[in-house]
Amino acid sequence: MLSKSQINLLKSLQHKKFRSGQSFFLVEGHKSIAEFINSAYQIETVYHTSAFEPKVLNLSQKINLCEISVTELEKISSLKTPQDVIAQVKLPQWPALDHSQLAGKFSIVLDGIQDPGNMGTIIRIADWFGIHYIVCSTDTVDVYNPKVIQASMGSLARLKVYYTDLTDFLAEIKLPAFGALLDGDNIYNTDFGREGLIIMGNEGNGLRPEVQKLVTQAVTIPRIGKAESLNVAIATALLCSEITRKFGQ
Amino acid sequence: MLSKSQINLLKSLQHKKFRSGQSFFLVEGHKSIAEFINSAYQIETVYHTSAFEPKVLNLSQKINLCEISVTELEKISSLKTPQDVIAQVKLPQWPALDHSQLAGKFSIVLDGIQDPGNMGTIIRIADWFGIHYIVCSTDTVDVYNPKVIQASMGSLARLKVYYTDLTDFLAEIKLPAFGALLDGDNIYNTDFGREGLIIMGNEGNGLRPEVQKLVTQAVTIPRIGKAESLNVAIATALLCSEITRKFGQ
Repeated sequence: MLSKSQINLLKSLQHKKFRSGQSFFLVEGHKSIAEFINSAYQIETVYHTSAFEPKVLNLSQKINLCEISVTELEKISSLKTPQDVIAQVKLPQWPALDHSQLAGKFSIVLDGIQDPGNMGTIIRIADWFGIHYIVCSTDTVDVYNPKVIQASMGSLARLKVYYTDLTDFLAEIKLPAFGALLDGDNIYNTDFGREGLIIMGNEGNGLRPEVQKLVTQAVTIPRIGKAESLNVAIATALLCSEITRKFGQ
Repeated sequence: MLSKSQINLLKSLQHKKFRSGQSFFLVEGHKSIAEFINSAYQIETVYHTSAFEPKVLNLSQKINLCEISVTELEKISSLKTPQDVIAQVKLPQWPALDHSQLAGKFSIVLDGIQDPGNMGTIIRIADWFGIHYIVCSTDTVDVYNPKVIQASMGSLARLKVYYTDLTDFLAEIKLPAFGALLDGDNIYNTDFGREGLIIMGNEGNGLRPEVQKLVTQAVTIPRIGKAESLNVAIATALLCSEITRKFGQ
């Protein structure tokens, strides 16, 4: 059984301020928890109800398990209908991003993405296309937000996500910077080369003018029909797919 | 002011049973309402609060406006924070789908899509890529579900969506049937030709075996990384993009 203060602490991790303060975040769902356990992340405790079967997590290492009641789990969970388990995971302390890590590959750069569902979907897309790094403006939604983790379906465990001053970052880095804009080159005819940044903007406003200035090549997904826009996660996927296709040639 | 029974009728349109019974559905959001007004759909009434400015809908025709209170609007709306206007629209009575309408173009076929957000996003994607027809299995989420309409961002007004027995439909139609499956041909190397069906399966289970049997060419989005799967709307977008790219060559 958990004390009231333990429940309050765990519950507070739904908010960024408390995640930073406590240095923990929560992961829900069997698949996601299993992915975090088998990653570089450190699991503090896995809270579970009596209905939970540890074998679903396919554990290859010893972890700290703690049985709690269904009511306690419901209090901690951010889901309307929680599963039978929640993992408390240590916030990682990655060393600062070394720009040379991004050489010879493609990475994603996000300028002010706000919707946690979009952020999680972009992480899942990155993981599908073998992209390991995402660099975000400081006003982008926090990657340890419970809704981001849920939408990323465990893929977050395999990626490194950094938050930084984007204009400084883009001004300093020596890589092609492909920005998704309305009047850029047709992505189907663009030579993306072998390395670079795929820069995606905010859902409503796109890339900020100061970020646009640092784009080295504007690219556009051609529109055949009449929809006013594409969702940012969809646009990210289309760019990643086109780069992958050309990389394979 | 609306009577209690009027409010109950409008509120009931959030449920499929009552939409079918009453032959109406609701559209929210300025952009979506404007798209439906400028389409083949018939607008019954546009309910609005005193804060509403008709010019945002860019009306070129006479429509039936009805002012209601904020409280009334909140009762009718399916949104947590409704805008100042809701349109009551007549359910369309399309003539039955004539297979010859699908010749010479690409259309999307959905086998049991359940999530309204995915359905709405697929409609928006279809509209972006100039696809006009979507054919769904009868157990696919209803296209006039408020969450589908919200996610489709007005694109639904430009598409025709049919519900039918998919196995009968696929058995009879004389078009290439490209099914998104795990062990199909690489989409980047597939010759999609100039016409066909893009068949996408349920979020958890994919295409049903009886639908798989009617696929004439299985196609697969190559995975470079480790994500277990891609969201069905993302996969639909990647297929549409690849077909569009080749069509333009």
